[in-house]
Amino acid sequence: MTRPDTPILDHIAGPADLRQMDGRTLAKLSQEVRAEVVSAVSETGGHLGSSLGVVELTVAIHAVFNTPSDKLIFDVGHQCYPHKVLTGRRDRIRTLRQKDGLSGFTKRSESEYDPFGAAHSSTSISAALGFTIGRDMGKPTGDAIAVIGDGAISAGMAYEALNNAGAEGRRLFVILNDNEMSIAPPVGAMSAYLSSLYAQEPFQKMRALAEGFESALPGPMRDGARRARQIVTGQGGETGSLFEALGFDYVGPIDGHDMGQLLSVLRSAKARATGPVLIHCCTVKGKGYAPAEKAADCGHGVSKFDPVTGEQAKSKPTAPAYTKVFGQALADAAARDPDVVAITAAMPSGTGVNIMAERYPNRVFDVGIAEQHGVTFAAGMAASGLKPFAAIYSTFLQRGYDQIVHDVALQNLPVRFAIDRAGLVGADGATHAGAFDIGYLSALPNMTVMAASDEAELVHMVETARVHDSGPIAFRYPRGNGVGVALPEMPQPFEIGKGRVVEEGSDVAFLSFGAHLGVVREATALLASQGVSATIADARFAKPLDLDLIHQLARHHGALLTVEQGARGGFGAQVLHALAASGAFDKGLAIRTLTLPDRFIDQASPAEMYEEAGLTAADLAKSAMQALGRETKVVPLRA
Amino acid sequence: MTRPDTPILDHIAGPADLRQMDGRTLAKLSQEVRAEVVSAVSETGGHLGSSLGVVELTVAIHAVFNTPSDKLIFDVGHQCYPHKVLTGRRDRIRTLRQKDGLSGFTKRSESEYDPFGAAHSSTSISAALGFTIGRDMGKPTGDAIAVIGDGAISAGMAYEALNNAGAEGRRLFVILNDNEMSIAPPVGAMSAYLSSLYAQEPFQKMRALAEGFESALPGPMRDGARRARQIVTGQGGETGSLFEALGFDYVGPIDGHDMGQLLSVLRSAKARATGPVLIHCCTVKGKGYAPAEKAADCGHGVSKFDPVTGEQAKSKPTAPAYTKVFGQALADAAARDPDVVAITAAMPSGTGVNIMAERYPNRVFDVGIAEQHGVTFAAGMAASGLKPFAAIYSTFLQRGYDQIVHDVALQNLPVRFAIDRAGLVGADGATHAGAFDIGYLSALPNMTVMAASDEAELVHMVETARVHDSGPIAFRYPRGNGVGVALPEMPQPFEIGKGRVVEEGSDVAFLSFGAHLGVVREATALLASQGVSATIADARFAKPLDLDLIHQLARHHGALLTVEQGARGGFGAQVLHALAASGAFDKGLAIRTLTLPDRFIDQASPAEMYEEAGLTAADLAKSAMQALGRETKVVPLRA
Repeated sequence: MTRPDTPILDHIAGPADLRQMDGRTLAKLSQEVRAEVVSAVSETGGHLGSSLGVVELTVAIHAVFNTPSDKLIFDVGHQCYPHKVLTGRRDRIRTLRQKDGLSGFTKRSESEYDPFGAAHSSTSISAALGFTIGRDMGKPTGDAIAVIGDGAISAGMAYEALNNAGAEGRRLFVILNDNEMSIAPPVGAMSAYLSSLYAQEPFQKMRALAEGFESALPGPMRDGARRARQIVTGQGGETGSLFEALGFDYVGPIDGHDMGQLLSVLRSAKARATGPVLIHCCTVKGKGYAPAEKAADCGHGVSKFDPVTGEQAKSKPTAPAYTKVFGQALADAAARDPDVVAITAAMPSGTGVNIMAERYPNRVFDVGIAEQHGVTFAAGMAASGLKPFAAIYSTFLQRGYDQIVHDVALQNLPVRFAIDRAGLVGADGATHAGAFDIGYLSALPNMTVMAASDEAELVHMVETARVHDSGPIAFRYPRGNGVGVALPEMPQPFEIGKGRVVEEGSDVAFLSFGAHLGVVREATALLASQGVSATIADARFAKPLDLDLIHQLARHHGALLTVEQGARGGFGAQVLHALAASGAFDKGLAIRTLTLPDRFIDQASPAEMYEEAGLTAADLAKSAMQALGRETKVVPLRA
Repeated sequence: MTRPDTPILDHIAGPADLRQMDGRTLAKLSQEVRAEVVSAVSETGGHLGSSLGVVELTVAIHAVFNTPSDKLIFDVGHQCYPHKVLTGRRDRIRTLRQKDGLSGFTKRSESEYDPFGAAHSSTSISAALGFTIGRDMGKPTGDAIAVIGDGAISAGMAYEALNNAGAEGRRLFVILNDNEMSIAPPVGAMSAYLSSLYAQEPFQKMRALAEGFESALPGPMRDGARRARQIVTGQGGETGSLFEALGFDYVGPIDGHDMGQLLSVLRSAKARATGPVLIHCCTVKGKGYAPAEKAADCGHGVSKFDPVTGEQAKSKPTAPAYTKVFGQALADAAARDPDVVAITAAMPSGTGVNIMAERYPNRVFDVGIAEQHGVTFAAGMAASGLKPFAAIYSTFLQRGYDQIVHDVALQNLPVRFAIDRAGLVGADGATHAGAFDIGYLSALPNMTVMAASDEAELVHMVETARVHDSGPIAFRYPRGNGVGVALPEMPQPFEIGKGRVVEEGSDVAFLSFGAHLGVVREATALLASQGVSATIADARFAKPLDLDLIHQLARHHGALLTVEQGARGGFGAQVLHALAASGAFDKGLAIRTLTLPDRFIDQASPAEMYEEAGLTAADLAKSAMQALGRETKVVPLRA
């Protein structure tokens, strides 16, 4: 594959080199960085659009600020590819999101230029404010600069941070990267507010940090009149923007692709700021690469693609994705039951609720990046008699944990949690792993917790959740495609707290919770080849447990192994507690709980990650042999 | 004790009666309700100041809105005593916060007039918005009214809800109960913003829902010029308040103790609102009861008191409170180590960090009701080289769970979590129980988790946390007073992951994690009287576990019992996982994990709550006998 011609970039050893360059050269460099990012992501896939949108901004920040002494913190971090190209990681940029390669996000362990890692939204201002305290208390840290998108800044956490930063009054730079689009089309009044800033002609005047700012800014900056806008003036005077109300000096909006403007504004801000400053920077997601600019999602997340045409590699048709199966099942449930409503936190297509939204747009609620609100909003709906499905990825549901405890479980309100991306998720790595939900939900009184072992089970679990109106219920399922089983024509609700025996054996029993069932089947095949007969049960429920099934498995086998795609303290722990309470260990029971290990697993394919986690079929078989006391007979078991 | 004279209140059967009364009568009724609340709380203790501040507002809302069809949702809910008096619970109002009595908060199971329970802050707008969806989808629910304080509305969750409600545009009432004070003195730019609304003379004009509003409002409403203010005008025009920017119609500020004003504004709002309305209502915390009005905290939380003098009952001097021991130890650590900083989420005195703040005001950071931000802010400080102690109650730390996972544990940043109110907490009931932290923290890679068995242990744990700079560490301790042991003159850091044997025995071993150690000692005394010799070990660490100690206890005793003040999936689960992995159950091990039961425990004294939870000394002894297979010998064991 031909690589782009990058004569300036080829001589960049690090950001310090940028500080010697004039604006024209930096603008040219930006084009080269852009070409390099397109070229690299065409080989790896990844978050293309966001990275293309911040090329000039990234170059300008490094040219003006003294990184890594100054702390540049990208919110979410998926827009960091230009930053990685410029900070000593160009040689590895084609390993993005691969096993043993560069993370798709900023990561402290990867570079001193990544002072604070990210992946979840809206953390950058909090972290940056933390660094300003360190600086002001004499730690060897310079200025702190948070770069945050218009979607991310609408989350409550960012608001809390702006509020606190405004009150603290310390020198701090927040750059609002406003491309009028987060993952989904803009939601919420915050977006409306931001948009309103542009709607008002003419571009009057700007209370800048320095008067020099004003002359540096052209009138209508982009897209003609649409981008012209009134700038908020006065400090606590007659008018004030949201940000000024929170105690920030507001500068902007400026054109985030105009190197001259960027350099001028950033230099003035750096030279003169004494307190918190918000620099409102307008960018175009996917900028400079036509296929991304034209795409509906601006190239937000792409597979490998042809850099000339932008055409993305299609994966071979296999079983449908769990996300789509859920979305379809939910839409079908909504068709049968007018009380079914759905909630998403800025991810309608990522969670599959867009399928229901196409048919019932008024019954699907996108609350924005607002998991705390989303969960309690769902609880309110449930209290009013509706049947809300809150569709939130496992890792993001952590954001609404207190609301699950306090508003849902404690009040025993029938909110249905559809938990996608349970377990290890692949290229997004450790930050997106759905490792903890089994534990943090099963600990809660009143909660019912299910996991789907295949896509047909998932369909039945949607129905189980729909009819379960007596309390909260959650069901988890993994990222990726189903196993290829036929989907039921008409879903049937499961009996609450009942598992099923999938395969009858005699020596050892596997009690599997969720999507590792296929690996368990492989393990039993390996065991069969060693003359060991295994029973496989699908627990379906981590809470309430199927105690009859568990005791039966324990009584009639030489060993019992629980298997789950989650951390310790989850399903296996619940089984252990129950068995201990019943005295099942008193006389001896060879039990092993196979869980994710006690460490974070870096990105790779899900299969590679589970190998790293010690949860392959061979690992399972080996554990079974060990539990049966037949360790010596183990031979290399990999199929 | 003489009861107040309440001739009007005595004839109130429910809120419907209020709708027949004129404003003058309602104002008189308010005085009677106030007297009744003072009288009741003088007997029970509780949240006096907040309830006194909303007497007129509560009366007016019930007089104007059609409760319980209309859904009145109090944020936090600790201001609900007047509401309870008026909604059929007057006969039980003197059981507030007592065992089997009324909850100190709103509670769905208690009354149809409590459509959504509360206790944690900032949930009301989300829940109210949920009810509006139910109403608009045909459920039998009327309007939704959220009453939220100026402290609670500054939290990110409330902002998310306002943002979403503004975008939804549905008819919804949010009443901002602004007493310029949350639990601590106002923090954050939000408070500054609210205050600025009053600072601007003259009281010009108000864009009301109806023009009738304007004439209903006097100019300077309260405290003369201080309360006079400019009212925001225009809808998306030249100016706009924060709330209007978010899509709300803004009405106010109005005097929350002026019944005429309240009725006029609420009636107009009810008659004419088509979208979301924010009614800014100014009240005085502790209003109408001089001792509360004069108190520094406006009578926020009081013990039983003399209603005439306001003098509160003093509890007998016993051991110092854990909160104070922590605060002192932290201040001492700060004196020795200039890198120690502290973070609180609007609770400096509730967490004890006020002691450090007195000596080092610039090193204690009150972020407001903002646990999400607070945790990541601390992570940023840690990344800059400081030693942050985030002092957050167990139940509120749930609000920052994703930040603990994603910003702290994953990056292995040395944030110290000081977790007060671990376990059952007494009068605040189930909503404030610290039941889940052991589990949700121990599941996280890189995390160290400790619990203090007495106040001297707590002092050493503060020091252990200070010197542990290689990753995150948490230590939990209960509400209430220590056990009376001597405090160390100089704290010594513990070896990470090492427990201690407290008492050597031979038949059965208790492995206790945290503050239940005293109960374990009682249990062993009971067992001794039955001829059973018990070993007691204090685990100190739930993570990493002291595996040597655990195996030793398991090997040399007939039974092993873990004890913790937390839910299943916590310490006991970690022990079970470890023992299972090592094959310790294969040949038999009588183990029991004593945890909180799988249900929420209503308010009572902590001792009563632990009795309800099945964790008394007698319960522990009985479990030990059962595990030893000596069930038949058990006689009533209560001392």
